[in-house]
Amino acid sequence: MRSMILRDPVHDLVRFETEEEAIVTELLQSREVQRLRRIKQLGATHLVFPGAEHSRFTHAVGAAHVMTKLVRRLRELHEELPFWQRLATDRARDALAASLLHDLGHGPYSHLFEEAIPGAPKHEIWSQRIVEDPSTDVHKTLAAHDGSLPDRVVSLIAGSDAKTPYPLPYLAHAVSGTLDVDRCDYLMRDAHMTGVRYGLLDLDWLLRSLRFGPTLGGHAPRLAIDGMKGLPAIEGFVIARRFMFEQVYLHKATRAAEAMIKAVFARAAKVILDGTRLPAVPEAIRLAAHGEPVPLGVYLALDDVIVGAAFAAWETASDPVLADLCDRVRRRHLSKTLELVGDASTPRVYGALVDEARALTVAAGLDADAHVSIDVAEASIAIEPPDDGETDDPTVDRLEVILGDGVARPLASVSGILAQLPSMPVRRVRLVVPPEIRDAMKARVLAASRG
Amino acid sequence: MRSMILRDPVHDLVRFETEEEAIVTELLQSREVQRLRRIKQLGATHLVFPGAEHSRFTHAVGAAHVMTKLVRRLRELHEELPFWQRLATDRARDALAASLLHDLGHGPYSHLFEEAIPGAPKHEIWSQRIVEDPSTDVHKTLAAHDGSLPDRVVSLIAGSDAKTPYPLPYLAHAVSGTLDVDRCDYLMRDAHMTGVRYGLLDLDWLLRSLRFGPTLGGHAPRLAIDGMKGLPAIEGFVIARRFMFEQVYLHKATRAAEAMIKAVFARAAKVILDGTRLPAVPEAIRLAAHGEPVPLGVYLALDDVIVGAAFAAWETASDPVLADLCDRVRRRHLSKTLELVGDASTPRVYGALVDEARALTVAAGLDADAHVSIDVAEASIAIEPPDDGETDDPTVDRLEVILGDGVARPLASVSGILAQLPSMPVRRVRLVVPPEIRDAMKARVLAASRG
Amino acid sequence: MRSMILRDPVHDLVRFETEEEAIVTELLQSREVQRLRRIKQLGATHLVFPGAEHSRFTHAVGAAHVMTKLVRRLRELHEELPFWQRLATDRARDALAASLLHDLGHGPYSHLFEEAIPGAPKHEIWSQRIVEDPSTDVHKTLAAHDGSLPDRVVSLIAGSDAKTPYPLPYLAHAVSGTLDVDRCDYLMRDAHMTGVRYGLLDLDWLLRSLRFGPTLGGHAPRLAIDGMKGLPAIEGFVIARRFMFEQVYLHKATRAAEAMIKAVFARAAKVILDGTRLPAVPEAIRLAAHGEPVPLGVYLALDDVIVGAAFAAWETASDPVLADLCDRVRRRHLSKTLELVGDASTPRVYGALVDEARALTVAAGLDADAHVSIDVAEASIAIEPPDDGETDDPTVDRLEVILGDGVARPLASVSGILAQLPSMPVRRVRLVVPPEIRDAMKARVLAASRG
Amino acid sequence: MRSMILRDPVHDLVRFETEEEAIVTELLQSREVQRLRRIKQLGATHLVFPGAEHSRFTHAVGAAHVMTKLVRRLRELHEELPFWQRLATDRARDALAASLLHDLGHGPYSHLFEEAIPGAPKHEIWSQRIVEDPSTDVHKTLAAHDGSLPDRVVSLIAGSDAKTPYPLPYLAHAVSGTLDVDRCDYLMRDAHMTGVRYGLLDLDWLLRSLRFGPTLGGHAPRLAIDGMKGLPAIEGFVIARRFMFEQVYLHKATRAAEAMIKAVFARAAKVILDGTRLPAVPEAIRLAAHGEPVPLGVYLALDDVIVGAAFAAWETASDPVLADLCDRVRRRHLSKTLELVGDASTPRVYGALVDEARALTVAAGLDADAHVSIDVAEASIAIEPPDDGETDDPTVDRLEVILGDGVARPLASVSGILAQLPSMPVRRVRLVVPPEIRDAMKARVLAASRG
Repeated sequence: MRSMILRDPVHDLVRFETEEEAIVTELLQSREVQRLRRIKQLGATHLVFPGAEHSRFTHAVGAAHVMTKLVRRLRELHEELPFWQRLATDRARDALAASLLHDLGHGPYSHLFEEAIPGAPKHEIWSQRIVEDPSTDVHKTLAAHDGSLPDRVVSLIAGSDAKTPYPLPYLAHAVSGTLDVDRCDYLMRDAHMTGVRYGLLDLDWLLRSLRFGPTLGGHAPRLAIDGMKGLPAIEGFVIARRFMFEQVYLHKATRAAEAMIKAVFARAAKVILDGTRLPAVPEAIRLAAHGEPVPLGVYLALDDVIVGAAFAAWETASDPVLADLCDRVRRRHLSKTLELVGDASTPRVYGALVDEARALTVAAGLDADAHVSIDVAEASIAIEPPDDGETDDPTVDRLEVILGDGVARPLASVSGILAQLPSMPVRRVRLVVPPEIRDAMKARVLAASRG
Repeated sequence: MRSMILRDPVHDLVRFETEEEAIVTELLQSREVQRLRRIKQLGATHLVFPGAEHSRFTHAVGAAHVMTKLVRRLRELHEELPFWQRLATDRARDALAASLLHDLGHGPYSHLFEEAIPGAPKHEIWSQRIVEDPSTDVHKTLAAHDGSLPDRVVSLIAGSDAKTPYPLPYLAHAVSGTLDVDRCDYLMRDAHMTGVRYGLLDLDWLLRSLRFGPTLGGHAPRLAIDGMKGLPAIEGFVIARRFMFEQVYLHKATRAAEAMIKAVFARAAKVILDGTRLPAVPEAIRLAAHGEPVPLGVYLALDDVIVGAAFAAWETASDPVLADLCDRVRRRHLSKTLELVGDASTPRVYGALVDEARALTVAAGLDADAHVSIDVAEASIAIEPPDDGETDDPTVDRLEVILGDGVARPLASVSGILAQLPSMPVRRVRLVVPPEIRDAMKARVLAASRG
Repeated sequence: MRSMILRDPVHDLVRFETEEEAIVTELLQSREVQRLRRIKQLGATHLVFPGAEHSRFTHAVGAAHVMTKLVRRLRELHEELPFWQRLATDRARDALAASLLHDLGHGPYSHLFEEAIPGAPKHEIWSQRIVEDPSTDVHKTLAAHDGSLPDRVVSLIAGSDAKTPYPLPYLAHAVSGTLDVDRCDYLMRDAHMTGVRYGLLDLDWLLRSLRFGPTLGGHAPRLAIDGMKGLPAIEGFVIARRFMFEQVYLHKATRAAEAMIKAVFARAAKVILDGTRLPAVPEAIRLAAHGEPVPLGVYLALDDVIVGAAFAAWETASDPVLADLCDRVRRRHLSKTLELVGDASTPRVYGALVDEARALTVAAGLDADAHVSIDVAEASIAIEPPDDGETDDPTVDRLEVILGDGVARPLASVSGILAQLPSMPVRRVRLVVPPEIRDAMKARVLAASRG
Repeated sequence: MRSMILRDPVHDLVRFETEEEAIVTELLQSREVQRLRRIKQLGATHLVFPGAEHSRFTHAVGAAHVMTKLVRRLRELHEELPFWQRLATDRARDALAASLLHDLGHGPYSHLFEEAIPGAPKHEIWSQRIVEDPSTDVHKTLAAHDGSLPDRVVSLIAGSDAKTPYPLPYLAHAVSGTLDVDRCDYLMRDAHMTGVRYGLLDLDWLLRSLRFGPTLGGHAPRLAIDGMKGLPAIEGFVIARRFMFEQVYLHKATRAAEAMIKAVFARAAKVILDGTRLPAVPEAIRLAAHGEPVPLGVYLALDDVIVGAAFAAWETASDPVLADLCDRVRRRHLSKTLELVGDASTPRVYGALVDEARALTVAAGLDADAHVSIDVAEASIAIEPPDDGETDDPTVDRLEVILGDGVARPLASVSGILAQLPSMPVRRVRLVVPPEIRDAMKARVLAASRG
C-alpha cells in the first residue's frame, strides 16, 4: 500500500494513507496526471491576479483530498442506509479516483481553444477518452485494480451526461454536481491564490452539515443539508461562488486577456490554413486548424509549455498581426474593455459600436478581427433547478434541507438569502478594444448608454 | 502618475500609489519584468511541495511591497538623521526600483544551469547587464526619470560587490543584506506556497523594531534592532530561515529532482558538442554548450517555457540517455537519495560508495554519469559575520541591538537563542541514485555508516 | 507625546503613535475606559460560543484602530475637498476619541438590564453623560486638550441624535452610521472570537474603496464607494452582518440564555421591591428597581464582576425562584426555545401556546413568569433607508456608489446581491421554556404549526 | 449518547461525537467545569496583551479536543502494539476526561494566591480533590460510568506524582508530560489570543509525526518522533514554548501586574489578621489568611468574579494601602520594573537597590512592602531531562527520535537547533517599583550595573 502525505497551501496537510486512498497515490504516478502540472488552473487570470499561478495538478489533488473528507463524513452517516447503499471500499475508491481525474482532459486555456478553433473536441470528452484508452497510464492503473474501474470512473465524472449512470447517484453528484468536491476545492483554492477573500468556504462545517435525505422509492437517498445549522454553510458556498464569478472569473481584465489569447489561436489557425510558414506550431493546433481529428497522444502533448513556446516563437512570425498579438500577450499589453449596459448591451445597439471600434482600430493601423470583439461573460450560479417541483428521481441533482420534522424542503424555500439571490445568471457585456482607441471609444459608449 | 493596486496571497493588498512608487508600476510594464512570470521562484521544488508553483514575478512584486513598508518605517525614524542622510523621494525611488529588479537576471533553474554548463554567466551579472543595457525596457524606463538611475539601481542590487557603493549603506543593506526585503518576501512567500508553516515572519513587528544605530564617524548609521521588544522578531526571522533551509531548500527529494535537471543540462550540452542533431535547443543553451558568449537578447529569451518545451522535445531525442532523463523528469519518476553521515560523508569513504552505485547503475542498463552523483547541500544561516569585532565602517552589513543604554551590541551577545544557534552551516551530504538500485545501495550505505 | 503599540488577535499590530493618536493613549488611562475590561462585548453569548469572552475594552481599542486607518485613507483623498472640509489634526483627534468612547456607557448585559428594569436609562445616554460629566477621568482628559472637545465627541457619538450636529457629517457617519468603525471592528472581532467564519471583512479593501461623493450644495460630501471595484467589499460587509445576526446575535441558545438573565434581573427587582432581604445587591440595581435615579458614579460601579458576584450570592437567596434561576445560569442549565413560524408566530396563535407552557411549567413545580416567555428577535440589516429618493442633505447617512460617469447611485441599484437581499428585517419568534417541559411543548408547537 | 459540536477561535470545529467522547459532553454539564468560565487562563496578562481574556474553560475544551486528535493518531499506530497495550474505548475515555479536567483545581490567579498566602493548598491538589470528592458533579459523572474512573483520572492528571501510576505510561505522558495536550492547546491558544505570533504550532503535523518507540522490557513503549520528517514539528514546539515564555509569560509588565495582585492578597491577609473590618472578603481568603483549612465547597466558590468584586469593594477599604493598591490595579496604573543584569541580579548587590527603592517609596508617601519587590521570573524550557542516560523505564517521560535504523535517540543528539538551545532556564531578575520613583531608581540601577 502506497501512502502519501503532502503539504498544501489551502488544505494544510493532505494525506492519502488508507487502503482505498492508495488509488490516488498510484494515479499520481501517471504521465497524464503529471501533465496537469503544466496547465494553469485559471489560464490567463494570473495576468490580473498575479498569485493565480496554480496548476490543475494542485486542484486535482485538492479535490481528491476533499473527497477523503467527504468519504469520512458519509461513513459517519452510514447507519441511516441499508448496507447495499453504503460506501464500501470499492465505491470509495471509485469516488477518490474520479475526483482526482475529473479535470484530466483540460488543455491549455481549454475554453478559449475550443471557442477559437471550432473543430476542437471539448475537454470533458478528452477526460473520458484518457480514462478509457488502454494506452494511458491512468487506464492501466485503474484496470490493474479491476477491469471495470475505468468505466465506473467515467460514469462518475460524466455526471448527468453519463451513458451508464453510476449506481449511487449521491456519489455521482458529489463528484460532479451542484455541491461537489471539484467546486469545494476550486472555490477555496482560487480565492486563496488570487488573494480575493470571498471564496473562503467553511468546508468542515459544510461537510458536517450533510446528511442523507429521505429514501426515494427504494433508491438511495440524496445528500441533503441538515437543518438550520447547516444553512449558513451552504449559503456561504453559494454566495462565495457568486463573488468569485463577479470578482475573478468574469473580471474585465481577465476577459480582455482571454479575448487576446482567443485571437492568437484564431489568427494562428488562419495563418496555418493560408499555408504561410509558422514556426513551433503544436501538432494538435495544426490538426484542429485543418479540421482534422486530433489523436489522443497528440492532444496530451499540448500543454502551457508547448503553447507558451509557440507564442514566444510567433513573436517573430512573418504575419505581423500574429506577431504583434503575441508580443502584446507576453509583455502584458492588454486590450481594454468597455462595459455595455442597458440598451447598449443588446446586439441591436452594440452593432454600431463595434463598427465604430473596428473603423478606429483600422485607422490606428491594427487588424480589426484581432483586436475588436464583443465579450458576453455569463455564469449561472443558481443552486436550484429552474423547475422546483417535487421529485422522487434520485438521479436528479438537487440540494434540499431537512428540518426538525424530517421533511426535505428546497433550499430556496428555507433560506432567506438564497430565495432572494437572482435566479438570473450573472451577465456582463463588454466591448473589447485595443488600448490605442480606448479613450475615443469610451466617449462613444457613454453617449450610446445615455442616448 | 500611474497608480496600481493588487491582491497578493501573501501580503493581501499591495499598493503602489505614491509618486515615488510609480516607478514600480512603470517597470512592471517592461518585457524584462514580465518575463519573470515565466520563471518559477523555486525551480523544481514544486515536484515535492506541489503548491510551490509561484513565479519570480510575484516575489519581485512582493519585495517591492516590503520596500514600500520599510520606506514608511524609515520615514518615521527620519528625525534621528541629518537631512542629507534621510530618505528623500529620489532615494526611495532608487530603493523601490532596486527591490523590484533585484532578481531580474534569473533564468530557469539558474543555479543548476550555471553549475551544469560552466561557461554560463551568473544570474547576478545578468541582473546588472539588463539594467545597464540601453536596449532594455527596464533601462529606458529608469533612464527616463534620471540618466544615473540605472547606475544607482545597480549599486543597490550589487550590494557589497558594487563597484560604486551606494551613498546610503543602510539602504543598500535593506535591498541586499542580512535583513533585506528580498529575504523577507521570499521567506514568507515560500513558506506560504509550500504549506510549510515555519517561515511565517512577523513582518510588521519586525519593521516596527527597526531604528537607526549610532552614527559612525560622520557616516549614516546602520539599521539596528530596537531593544528587547524587537528581539523576538529578529530571532524569528533567523529561525525561520534555518527551518526553510532544512525543510524546503535542502529537502532530499528537491535535491534529487535538481540533480536530474542538472543531468539533463549536462547531457544535452554533451550531445550538442558531439554534433548529434537535437530538436528545440534554446539558443542560449547551444551557445553556452559551445563555450560561446551569450548575447543579452538571447539570454532573455530563455525561460521555463522554452526550457520546458526543450525537455518535452528531448523525450524523443535520438540520444537514449537524454530521452530517458527527460521522460523521468516530466513524469516525476525521481531519483532517490541516501543520506551520508559521519565518516560516510567524507570523500575518502563515499568515493567507494559512488563506485559501487555507478557499477550497479550500469548493470541496471543506465548511464552512470546521468544518474549517480554526490550532492552536498549546504547553507550558512549565521546572521553575524564570523569576525565579531567592533567596527565603525558603515558599509559593513551587520545587525546590532540597541538596548536602553543606547549602546549597539551584536545580536548574538543579546539573544539567548541566537548565541546558541550553530555558526556552522546546515550541511547534508547525499548519494543520489536511480530508483532501480536504491534498495541495493541502501544496505551498503547502512553498512558503511556502521563500519 | 505618549505612543503605544499593542498586539491584537484581530488586527495584529495596533499602533497609536502620531500626535493626534495620543488622545487614544491618554484616554486608555481613564477609569471609565478601563472599566470596559469588566464588561463582555457579547454578554451571554460565550455560553453558546465559548470563545466569545472578549470585553468591550478590546472592541473599543479595535474601533479606534480602524479609525486610524480610516483617517489615513481620508487623507489620501484630501485633495478632492476644499481645505475647510479636510480632516485637520483636531478633527482627526475628535474622531479618534469618539471611536474609542462610542460604547463607553454600556453596562453588563445592557439591553437585558434596560428591558428588565424599565426605569433604567439607556446606555447611549450614559455614554454622553460620562463624556460630559466634569468628574470623570474621560472628561478631564478631553477638556485638558480643548474645552469644547467633550461636546464635539458627544456630537460624534450621538450620530443622528446629536443636539448639535458635527460640522463634518461624513466624519459623524464614520463614527456612528451605516458603515462605521464600530461595525467594522465588531463584525471582525465577534466573527473571530465566536469562530464563526462569516463576519470576516476585507477591511483594507473596503477602506481603499472609499472616496468622496459629489459635493452637496456647498456642504462637505458624503463618503461613497468607488465604482465596481469597491462593490464586493461593501456587499461582503452587508452579507457578513446578516450572517452574524442569523448565526450569532439571534442564535436560539444565546437568546434562551438572555431570557434567563432578564428573568434574573426582573425577579431580583421584584424581590427587592417586596422588601425581602437579598445579599450583594448592586446599588444601581436597587435604585433602578425602586424607580429612583441612578447617579453616574453608582452606574459606573456596575460591571460584569459586580453582577456576577450578585448572581453567585443569589444562588443562596431565600427566594427559591431567584436562587434556582441563578443556579441554572451559573451551571449553564439553559432554557430551551421552540421556533414559531407561520401563523404560530402571531400573538393570536402563540397566546394559547404560552398559556399551555405556563401551565406545564407550574405543574413541573417552577415559576411561570421566570421560565416562560415569547422571544421576538429581530434586526434590520438593510443598508438603504426605506425611502430611496434623491437627497442633497449631507447629514442623511446613506451609502452610494460612484461609477465611471461620476454619478452617485444608491447601492441597491448597482449591486445585484443587495438589490435582492430582503429589505425586511431578520425576525425569529420563539417560545422560551424550561428544559423540563420542552418535549411536551415541542409536540404542541408542531401541532399548532400544522393546524 | 450526547454529541456536541462547537466553534473555537483556535481549533475551528471542535466535535465530541463518538461514544467515548460523550464523557466530555457529560462533564461539561458539571458545576465545577462551568466554574472555569469564571477564571481567566492567563490571570493578569490581559492588562498587557488586551486580547488575553480567555478563560480556563476554553483551554480545557481545547485540551480535550487535542486529545480526540491524539486518540485518532494513536489508533492509526495500533498495529505496532500488542492488544493489551492498545487504546481501548475505556482508556480513551480516561484520557479524554483527564485532559478536560487537568486544570480543574485552578483558582483566580492561582500562583499568586498560593505565593501570597502561604497556607493555601496548591491547585494541583485541588484538581485531585474535586475529582475524588463524592459530592462534586464531576465525581458523580465519572463514577456513573465506572466506580474506578475517578481514580484513573487522578492517576493521569497527577502524572509523575501519581500514587498509583496509570497502566499505560505513554497515555499518562500525553495528559501531563513533556509533550502533552495541555501544552499543545495552551501554546496555540495563548499565542492566538495575545496576538503574539510565535506559539503557532503545526499541530496536525506534530501529531502525524508521532509513533511508538521500541518496547521497553515488556512494557508499553513511549511515544516518539518519527524520523527527520517529524523533527521540525517538535523543534517548532520547543521554540514556541521558549518564545511564549520570553514574550508573554515572563513579560515585564505582566510580572509587574502580578506583583501588584500578590501585594493585594498579602495586604488583605494582613488586614484580616489585624482584625480590621474589610468588606466582601471571600470566605476562602479569610480562612487561608487565618491559616485554617479551606473546605472544598468554599474553595470552589472562589473565582475571578468573587475576587474581582472584593477588589472593587476594597477600593474603599479603611486601610489606605489596600485601597490604593486596588484602585491602581483596577485602573491599570501599573508598577514599573527595572531589569537587573549581571552582578545586579544577585542578592548581594540588589539588596542595596531594594533598600534604596524602599526608602524612596516611603519618601513618596507609599508603603514599601506593598510596592517594592524583587521579581525572579524563571522557566525551564529544556525538553530533555538533565541526565541523558539510556533508560528502559517506561514511566520516565522523555522524547526520542526514531530514525531509519529504528534506534531511539535523544532529541538533542539529532536536532541541531535543540542541541544548542540553552539547557539553562530562561531567567529574569527585576526590581518592581511604583511609577512615582521609577526614574530616580532607573539611574541607580544603571549605575549599579556599570559599577
